[in-house]
Amino acid sequence: MAQKKYVYCFGNGGAEGEAAQKSLLGGKGANLAEMASIGVPVPPGFTITTEACKEYYEIGKENLFEKIKPEVDEYLKWLENVTGKSFGHGPNPLLVSVRSGAPLSMPGMMDTVLNLGLNDETLDALIELTQNRRFALDAYRRFVQMFGDVVMGIKDSDEQGNEFDPLHVAMDKVKEKHGRELDTDLTADEMAEVLEACKDCYSKYTGETFPQDPVDQLYRGIAAVFGSWNTPRAVRYREINEIRGLLGTAVNVQTMVYGNMGEDSGTGVAFTRNPATGENEFYGEFLMNAQGEDVVAGIRTPQSISGLCEIMPEAYDQLIDIRKKLESHYRDMQDIEFTIEQGTLYMLQTRTGKRTGRAAVQMAMDMLDESLISEKEAVLRVPPNDLDQLLHPMLDPEAEENAESLATGLPASPGAASGRVVFSAEDAERWHSQGEKVVLCRTETSPEDVGGMHAAEGILTTRGGMTSHAAVVARGWGKCCIAGASDVLIDLSNRRLSVDGKVIKEGDSISLNGTTGKVYEGELPTVEPKMSGPFGRLMELAEKYRTIGVRTNADTPDDTEVAIKYGAEGIGLTRTEHMFFEGERIKSFRRLILVAQKVKAAKDKMQAAGDDEEEAEKVRQDNKAVLDQYHQALDELLPYQRQDFEGIYKALDGRPCTVRLLDPPLHEFLPHDEEGQQGMADAMGVSLDQVKETVEALKEANPMLGHRGCRLGLTYPEVSDMQVRAIIEAAINVKRNENVDVHPEIMIPLAGNAEELRIARERAEKVIESIFEEKGANRDEVPYKIGTMIEVPRAAVTADKVAEHADFFSFGTNDLTQMGCGFSRDDAGGFLRDYVKMGIYEKDPFQVLDQEGIGEMVDMAVEKGRSTTSDLKTGICGEHGGEPESVKFCYRTGLDYVSCSPFRVPIARLAAAQGVIEAEQS
Amino acid sequence: MAQKKYVYCFGNGGAEGEAAQKSLLGGKGANLAEMASIGVPVPPGFTITTEACKEYYEIGKENLFEKIKPEVDEYLKWLENVTGKSFGHGPNPLLVSVRSGAPLSMPGMMDTVLNLGLNDETLDALIELTQNRRFALDAYRRFVQMFGDVVMGIKDSDEQGNEFDPLHVAMDKVKEKHGRELDTDLTADEMAEVLEACKDCYSKYTGETFPQDPVDQLYRGIAAVFGSWNTPRAVRYREINEIRGLLGTAVNVQTMVYGNMGEDSGTGVAFTRNPATGENEFYGEFLMNAQGEDVVAGIRTPQSISGLCEIMPEAYDQLIDIRKKLESHYRDMQDIEFTIEQGTLYMLQTRTGKRTGRAAVQMAMDMLDESLISEKEAVLRVPPNDLDQLLHPMLDPEAEENAESLATGLPASPGAASGRVVFSAEDAERWHSQGEKVVLCRTETSPEDVGGMHAAEGILTTRGGMTSHAAVVARGWGKCCIAGASDVLIDLSNRRLSVDGKVIKEGDSISLNGTTGKVYEGELPTVEPKMSGPFGRLMELAEKYRTIGVRTNADTPDDTEVAIKYGAEGIGLTRTEHMFFEGERIKSFRRLILVAQKVKAAKDKMQAAGDDEEEAEKVRQDNKAVLDQYHQALDELLPYQRQDFEGIYKALDGRPCTVRLLDPPLHEFLPHDEEGQQGMADAMGVSLDQVKETVEALKEANPMLGHRGCRLGLTYPEVSDMQVRAIIEAAINVKRNENVDVHPEIMIPLAGNAEELRIARERAEKVIESIFEEKGANRDEVPYKIGTMIEVPRAAVTADKVAEHADFFSFGTNDLTQMGCGFSRDDAGGFLRDYVKMGIYEKDPFQVLDQEGIGEMVDMAVEKGRSTTSDLKTGICGEHGGEPESVKFCYRTGLDYVSCSPFRVPIARLAAAQGVIEAEQS
Repeated sequence: MAQKKYVYCFGNGGAEGEAAQKSLLGGKGANLAEMASIGVPVPPGFTITTEACKEYYEIGKENLFEKIKPEVDEYLKWLENVTGKSFGHGPNPLLVSVRSGAPLSMPGMMDTVLNLGLNDETLDALIELTQNRRFALDAYRRFVQMFGDVVMGIKDSDEQGNEFDPLHVAMDKVKEKHGRELDTDLTADEMAEVLEACKDCYSKYTGETFPQDPVDQLYRGIAAVFGSWNTPRAVRYREINEIRGLLGTAVNVQTMVYGNMGEDSGTGVAFTRNPATGENEFYGEFLMNAQGEDVVAGIRTPQSISGLCEIMPEAYDQLIDIRKKLESHYRDMQDIEFTIEQGTLYMLQTRTGKRTGRAAVQMAMDMLDESLISEKEAVLRVPPNDLDQLLHPMLDPEAEENAESLATGLPASPGAASGRVVFSAEDAERWHSQGEKVVLCRTETSPEDVGGMHAAEGILTTRGGMTSHAAVVARGWGKCCIAGASDVLIDLSNRRLSVDGKVIKEGDSISLNGTTGKVYEGELPTVEPKMSGPFGRLMELAEKYRTIGVRTNADTPDDTEVAIKYGAEGIGLTRTEHMFFEGERIKSFRRLILVAQKVKAAKDKMQAAGDDEEEAEKVRQDNKAVLDQYHQALDELLPYQRQDFEGIYKALDGRPCTVRLLDPPLHEFLPHDEEGQQGMADAMGVSLDQVKETVEALKEANPMLGHRGCRLGLTYPEVSDMQVRAIIEAAINVKRNENVDVHPEIMIPLAGNAEELRIARERAEKVIESIFEEKGANRDEVPYKIGTMIEVPRAAVTADKVAEHADFFSFGTNDLTQMGCGFSRDDAGGFLRDYVKMGIYEKDPFQVLDQEGIGEMVDMAVEKGRSTTSDLKTGICGEHGGEPESVKFCYRTGLDYVSCSPFRVPIARLAAAQGVIEAEQS
Repeated sequence: MAQKKYVYCFGNGGAEGEAAQKSLLGGKGANLAEMASIGVPVPPGFTITTEACKEYYEIGKENLFEKIKPEVDEYLKWLENVTGKSFGHGPNPLLVSVRSGAPLSMPGMMDTVLNLGLNDETLDALIELTQNRRFALDAYRRFVQMFGDVVMGIKDSDEQGNEFDPLHVAMDKVKEKHGRELDTDLTADEMAEVLEACKDCYSKYTGETFPQDPVDQLYRGIAAVFGSWNTPRAVRYREINEIRGLLGTAVNVQTMVYGNMGEDSGTGVAFTRNPATGENEFYGEFLMNAQGEDVVAGIRTPQSISGLCEIMPEAYDQLIDIRKKLESHYRDMQDIEFTIEQGTLYMLQTRTGKRTGRAAVQMAMDMLDESLISEKEAVLRVPPNDLDQLLHPMLDPEAEENAESLATGLPASPGAASGRVVFSAEDAERWHSQGEKVVLCRTETSPEDVGGMHAAEGILTTRGGMTSHAAVVARGWGKCCIAGASDVLIDLSNRRLSVDGKVIKEGDSISLNGTTGKVYEGELPTVEPKMSGPFGRLMELAEKYRTIGVRTNADTPDDTEVAIKYGAEGIGLTRTEHMFFEGERIKSFRRLILVAQKVKAAKDKMQAAGDDEEEAEKVRQDNKAVLDQYHQALDELLPYQRQDFEGIYKALDGRPCTVRLLDPPLHEFLPHDEEGQQGMADAMGVSLDQVKETVEALKEANPMLGHRGCRLGLTYPEVSDMQVRAIIEAAINVKRNENVDVHPEIMIPLAGNAEELRIARERAEKVIESIFEEKGANRDEVPYKIGTMIEVPRAAVTADKVAEHADFFSFGTNDLTQMGCGFSRDDAGGFLRDYVKMGIYEKDPFQVLDQEGIGEMVDMAVEKGRSTTSDLKTGICGEHGGEPESVKFCYRTGLDYVSCSPFRVPIARLAAAQGVIEAEQS
């Protein structure tokens, strides 16, 4: 057996690895290798694989290091050779960076050590070599600080329990002593003082003098990187981003180059295109005489990349060439880091750049036009969920015009956000959990803040640029962010911010326009976005490939119109229960509920009376009052319902409309607190006791598994009759009065048994026949269908029998997941997050369809259903209908359509097209 | 197409129908035909089919009668011919009975009209013919009364709303006027007066004179029988007895014969063997000079059948011959009715007799010994559920010996019952629904009482014999009944009964011994029955055929011993949660629950800390108190649990034992009312608020679909660890200390996903390995298995994957039914009874496994499971494991065993044997 290779080199005009080896070398390492291979200048170095990281956790540090030492030693020698430097000694000392590089980008999550290889001996050599004592001292002090922080974990806290970094406090003290505000203000001698203070501080906290052996430094650095894979913040980041199944991080050991070697040096980060808008412009920032960390950390506000053209035109031209080379090589937008060391350009990183949804769409269309990618690639290039960012409201331009902006920052992540101001990530999480919409306002954000950032509607920072932590993270999530709003002063101790004396307190509302960078006081109204430009083109392209239908779940004409604008081909689910909650209707419906059980009891007695008409009549007379109240309530509800459907049919303009008959248990329509019950009693003119009695009588131990769905319709068939009547009468009216075709599809919910459907269907057909007779209509005029939702596991298992009475199946995957997996959405909080963490479910099965289990039931039901009813229409109307992976599953399973909320229609359309292309390619 | 035949004749030495045509001719009609065919004397007549009844409801009375009239006319003519009588006129008038006869016996449920054909003209002829004016008048008045009641539905009610029959009141008035107590005391003239009174009364209530046209009488009679099929009481009877899928009732029109034609006439009912004990003795009752209805109605107390031997030896000998002939022909015990008309014996009915479980077993064994039936038939002859009657407690003979009986009645249905006295069926139902055990005490029962009879523990009547309504119905249900306890006086208006001055009030307790007929005051203790005699023989016979294993669900050594006595081959389900409720344990467990969520949060933090041991230690220190409390509670619980298992293992004596790890959600272990919570707070030394907070935090919207089963074990793995430790340590102890083999099977509940099982199994195996190491034990010494319950539909669907981590599957069909059908047992009350009534489910799926749906899931899971794990053991431990039809299903599906409650073990064993024999025969 060949021995496992743990180390791969790159640079010096070639590399052992390549971009495709991301899972082994990490993203950074793989791309460094790739760049080296294609002739892009990178400082040489080597990568220790993610497999080593995995073994670090499996066999322990000591065992691992014993295993990899021969290779590391060999590659260190190679590095000394190609750079002509020597590690830890000699006149030209080799200094390296030790950085993590995971297979997936996790911005700011992993720790880095720079300038490793410096010690008291090499410091002198460096001074000699660079003839820049201050620079060399600064490099050594940075190394001591980073090593102390990252490798040794030096931390302390004051009497109030606030944590601080003693190594930086030590430096601050020296700065204070000499009255220096910025690090750059320190003289060389003062920097020497800082270095000594840091080394003393290091000794004080670790009990050892700062390690002088560079090999020892290196291995401790490597161990720190591996260790950082499992820090709480890294674990939390992977959790939020649902990153699983990785081996670990790789370690990149790379020759140091210095952007802070004077005014002919600098460092920068850039995107080959604008990551916020997608525009084909070189987009980035740089700082002269600075190390790379300074740009990302957002401490100094950097200059736009175009400025480099004037300062260092040669380096700039070289960078422009590299930008082009990388884009045509990778055929995608790149996120790059570079350093110019005394006039020489080095690329430190390239990776496919994160982008907003808007940018993804723009770039896909542009690159298609540029013939950089094919049509199919363009379709695949946009993650469907990213469209969400293009579909969500923006600040109403008119309202914005009339409002005066409070401040302007960098438009770091587009969209709109408004909410109440909070000043810490913890507050953001806490307020959010209490149902508040918040905007997180921070001087700058750090990886510790990701939880609160995620919870916030939007993020406002007063420092940092377009590539600051806040900006990068927010763009990744498609969350609105304004960065570097330097006019805003945050007064943390008084929990308020101010702009030109205007004060905004914690809890006050502000609004952000992430596309312009403008901040407003108060909550501005928002408007719907439009489908035009590249977005429209992408959608057209998707249509070329999509084969599965896309409908919408909509309960109102307004929702229907939005969905149709977004390309919905009909309604896959109209929930009629929402219709009962409005205005007068809820009163009528509650009047019905108050007597429903008595009516049922009376009807049972009448039925038992059989042909004893006298007895039946007696029961009828005894229960006259409740029967009258029941039927009167139904009579009141009918015109409302009819009107509802007329509006929706008109909006659909000939497209099909699936209407689900009443689904939730009756108790959901009653108030559950005493105040509400008293209100209801007053409104109905009944006693509070009667209301309470009804609430009590309808109470259920497991409402999810209770008296609802078609069970209600079978117990109270008159309610279904009324709904069917409203559906069909509305269809006739719209057809006749508006000359609009109507294709109503009556959906009987929660059937678990073919007989339920047979009985409900027969009853519905009788109602329809009688309406047809009354109105002289027929099925040609109103071509209705009757079908069922498949949401009870038993229905999936007996779908062949169920299908005998169904024109269509619509999979209600929300409930099918609850019953199929046996956990209710309301109660799964206690364990489901852990389950995803443990990998029991790959994703939350309420968000992404559990294909292995629930998907298997869908598959089975489709196959069985079609075995008896070959022309059975099948669709999905659970929330999974708008989730890309689930949409692709539905396509593969052969469903006729998916149905989702209006705003997810474009997402479903794109996912559906991608499903076809992916299936072709697999 | 041959025309449909609606009428079949019988008698005169032959018949058109046969016994096999029960569904067409009804039980009575088919057996009359059969008897006629084999030469048993029956009065000739004809049967109108159940198909006619079906059409009566489909096409209406008028249309049906038009259709069947030609046939009825033809058969009437035939009947006149073979009897030499003429219908409605002439010197020898043909009188007929019109009786219902459904395919299944429904005692007392259907209406009957006798003496039809009498009118003013034939009355005179009858007087002339019989030379018995009183008899003829009596026959006519009976006819008028029955016709008025059954056909015309004459009823009235007094000012208090009490219903009465005016036709009988009219008769009573005449009796009163002449000072006559009994009907038989009336003279012929007085009877003439009664007749006129009845006819007047008839006219008053119907507005017509009593119909004189016999054909009109006949058709109205036929219509009344058909109509009686759907009276409330008939519908209710079918509901209680789960009778479905029948067409309707047939109508038997049969020549009248008279048991009341003087002292050489009589009538009786009998069973060819004792229906209570099964003894091979002729068993019945008769009344001289009486009509058949008089025996059944229980108004006059009849004589034992053996008395007939002395009074009419010839007829008795003939009856004994017929008894033998019928038994050898039908090869089963018969329930017969006969009438002797002036010395001539006629059989009016034979049918397979209902019997108690005890009798069924006795007869099956006797008939096998008599070579009347084969072994397999003997096994099939006993309905498994009837064994229940042999397995339930009897009154403790010792206590009975020391108690003085209050009264003695007829031992109408054996067994024991004790409960609080109620005097009406309505009260019995109401008290029962409030959780009270009641004994229903009535003068006599009538079909209107069946609901209350069903609700009562036992029934006591003061009138009527062994074949009275109460006796017949109670025996059918295997419910204890004492009939005809004539010393007991019921004082309905004061709601009390008295015996010799001793008064028992409503609500006082009494006990019944249905085997001896003795009634006791108060609640006597009961004892367990024994498996011996014919019962033991039947069980031995069953063992010859049974192939599927039978285990028991038992949580204590006592239950285990009972089950083993009944033949259980091991434990299929030990529920460990019950063990936590006792004494000190519940305190320990509640202490654990109080901190469980905090422990979980702390552990999450420690996990998130990763290799940051300092951080982890800090969290550990911060949560020291709760962690200590948690682990201490577990330490307290371990020895209790170990002891539990040791006791059960010893009782099992080498048989396998499936132990289910903790299943119910934690909130089930907390008190839910404030009083209980205060008690808990006091006992734990914590605040009421803390208890309430925990209760609130653990509350679930749908506990059925909540945080329970293996989900608990994955969140709180230390609880499972403790249980696994107890299971294995107990096994080692019992093996070493008692030299008893132990085969523990650890069952992980509620897995829905292979990964859950994999993780839980791995953890359990680690615990076991460490115990083995501690104790120097191994798997040879304790050959354990680890498996799961299949009760989540997803687990059934992905059973191939789940089986990879399972040594066995045990189907938890209770929960599988709830989740698979999507209705919770607690909430299904609102619709499930209707569902069964509507035929959506043939039987309550919680009682009888829903083979079509849930059975399909079981089938699928077995097949898929064995596809990956060929030696997978499979069993069922839901309550269906003791239900005969479900047991047969399990056998056909190829499960290795069923498991049921101890008292159902013999039932399961018998059903399992029947399943094999039935499969052979099909």
